[in-house]
Amino acid sequence: MDPLDVLTNLEKVIPYYQAIFSADEQRVIGYEVLGRIQIENDVESLGSFFHDENIPDEYRIEVDDYILHNALKEFLSLMDSEILLFINRDANLLMLDHGESFLQALLDQQINGLKLTQIVLEITEHNFQGDTEQLYHLLTYYRTYGIKIAIDNIGKASSNLDRIGLLSPDILKIDLQPLRLTSPLQSYYDVLYSISLLARKIGATLLYEDVEVNFQLQYAWKNGGRYYQGYFLDKPKREFLQRDDSKERLKREFQTFISTEKKKLETIYKFTEQFHKRIQQFLMKYDKQDEQYELLLNQLSNELDDCCFRIYICDEDGFQQSVNIFKKDTWIVQPQYYMKNWSWRPYFLANIIKMRFEKKGFLSDVYSDIETGELIRTFSYPLNNIHYLFVDLSYEYLFEEEGLL
Amino acid sequence: MDPLDVLTNLEKVIPYYQAIFSADEQRVIGYEVLGRIQIENDVESLGSFFHDENIPDEYRIEVDDYILHNALKEFLSLMDSEILLFINRDANLLMLDHGESFLQALLDQQINGLKLTQIVLEITEHNFQGDTEQLYHLLTYYRTYGIKIAIDNIGKASSNLDRIGLLSPDILKIDLQPLRLTSPLQSYYDVLYSISLLARKIGATLLYEDVEVNFQLQYAWKNGGRYYQGYFLDKPKREFLQRDDSKERLKREFQTFISTEKKKLETIYKFTEQFHKRIQQFLMKYDKQDEQYELLLNQLSNELDDCCFRIYICDEDGFQQSVNIFKKDTWIVQPQYYMKNWSWRPYFLANIIKMRFEKKGFLSDVYSDIETGELIRTFSYPLNNIHYLFVDLSYEYLFEEEGLL
Repeated sequence: MDPLDVLTNLEKVIPYYQAIFSADEQRVIGYEVLGRIQIENDVESLGSFFHDENIPDEYRIEVDDYILHNALKEFLSLMDSEILLFINRDANLLMLDHGESFLQALLDQQINGLKLTQIVLEITEHNFQGDTEQLYHLLTYYRTYGIKIAIDNIGKASSNLDRIGLLSPDILKIDLQPLRLTSPLQSYYDVLYSISLLARKIGATLLYEDVEVNFQLQYAWKNGGRYYQGYFLDKPKREFLQRDDSKERLKREFQTFISTEKKKLETIYKFTEQFHKRIQQFLMKYDKQDEQYELLLNQLSNELDDCCFRIYICDEDGFQQSVNIFKKDTWIVQPQYYMKNWSWRPYFLANIIKMRFEKKGFLSDVYSDIETGELIRTFSYPLNNIHYLFVDLSYEYLFEEEGLL
Repeated sequence: MDPLDVLTNLEKVIPYYQAIFSADEQRVIGYEVLGRIQIENDVESLGSFFHDENIPDEYRIEVDDYILHNALKEFLSLMDSEILLFINRDANLLMLDHGESFLQALLDQQINGLKLTQIVLEITEHNFQGDTEQLYHLLTYYRTYGIKIAIDNIGKASSNLDRIGLLSPDILKIDLQPLRLTSPLQSYYDVLYSISLLARKIGATLLYEDVEVNFQLQYAWKNGGRYYQGYFLDKPKREFLQRDDSKERLKREFQTFISTEKKKLETIYKFTEQFHKRIQQFLMKYDKQDEQYELLLNQLSNELDDCCFRIYICDEDGFQQSVNIFKKDTWIVQPQYYMKNWSWRPYFLANIIKMRFEKKGFLSDVYSDIETGELIRTFSYPLNNIHYLFVDLSYEYLFEEEGLL
């Protein structure tokens, strides 16, 4: 498309709207504005126009402003003071006049009933060439008006953790495209998992975009997604989707996710109880006179040969009180682990205190073993008043058991 | 320093070594090689030389190789097959010959006893101009030799989550400089917290560098740090620090951290038990005939006025079964929250299942409230067989109570 064709046909430029849904209300909570142009009987995206840096800034700004003006007018006609409007802005263009014209365009619509708290500014700044601090000052200034800030492309090439941290955006937008691969890297899941926990810590809302099939929606829901957007839910269109149009369908979807997840959690609970009993019963048979932990570990490795690959014992400060017994084809003793300290590991001391208070064993989440790199879980068990048993369950075992991976 | 001065005085270029310590062994587990040059009676860093892209690549490579050659020789003289050598390489320079000369330099030392599993390659690639995928292929190839890969500057401008994910490095190196600010942003802590959980998930080891004062060491220890480096522990020097030189001191430091953390965790446990009793006793007095939750919430808000700012009730699928009662100067009712669903929030369903099985209330970690942005904790309590009570504790209250923030 020739850029001049766009500019000379400005009256054919139109805003399209893609609905954004929330998991808490199971209905539309906002619309993202997308630029389109009517060419004969076709409607084409203006995405490439906006991303083409060879097109002079003032041209792109003119088209951007034109769309914004019309979108705001149509948005106000909804007369819904709770719904959000998501507006994209290129950071480079925004900063040309220090963000003034954009803010003014919004302020101008206040007399027509626009509340600035309804505006979400989606900022694309991974190719921003200016002073990041000035940009962040501007965004902070916008927020004093109630404008919400969304950061785009989290989890992709441009997602620096520090900018998430610096800006504490209201919304983190995560693209699910890598999930369409037949086998995305495990680490992709891990990165999204840690982003979801970061979002919780900083109080940001996660918006998953490009949701194209059911399992992506489920994945997004499982990973802290509050808002969703994508062809699976609604295509961009000329009109605003009715807020409750997909409510029943969404409710059904979420209900399925909830049931599945609850069943999985119940399985883990039941497994934990059984495994606790299994160790308890073994220890009852075991002659406690014998304080040689190496012997205990030896016998335990026989008993738990079907499921585990490493066993050791620590005191409540995390100092290892035994050797490691480790399965590498056969079981071997690793004496060099004696007196190593594990208190620095995430959750370690919290888990010790938990066992001390509750006098019960429990199962960890799935994580990567730091030595083998395999996905494992650890079962911890209070051996007596001062020492704690750790049993690392192997990937093969977790894989075979229903619902443990 | 004139680059030519470096090249014409190559015999004055020397490797310095900064020790890296581990929390599990409380002693030196490796040394980072740093380039220095002897100028008259001074020893100057070659950092600026290596980072100056105006200096021709071949000059920098020559100096790099010279240092590496000498460092390997000295390293081998240690005759310690367990200790690690951390070697920095600029990704741009490394890729000039597709990483061949670097690998060959290492392979050449195998006859002298070098095990490639002792080598950690610290790769700096935030200014890498080549094909990232080719670089990652090379690093993956290196790893087949047992060489470990460390990624630098995590948590700083260049730390893309996707590259952490793509490469699954063995070691993530985190710079603690922002912690020297008198008041680093809360979000800085949150970002590091989520990196520590990511590291656990992908099985990477966290190395905190620039540890300059005690509280940074404590912070690093608390946030999943296994390895530490910095002036607080050891300055770069011409000789290798003896492995056990700081063992007693480190052990004392960690013991203090462990005691402090355990006390904090005990406080939280005791608080949880007391708070559970407080709610239990209130509910025993409360007339259960009355199934109007709004009335219950009303009375609870009187009872818990000192500590909480929001109370609501959900079923076990996360559908809210009551209004919100919310403290904003005075307590107000927010009816619009009725039937909202919260199952998408991290930990929500896991916590429900936990309460169902254990029939006990419990306290969440500290996180940012999604509406107020304040740091809060939530106390959850199984109200009956199907409904669960959620009490959000205010920042002011947590701040006043010992050990809850």
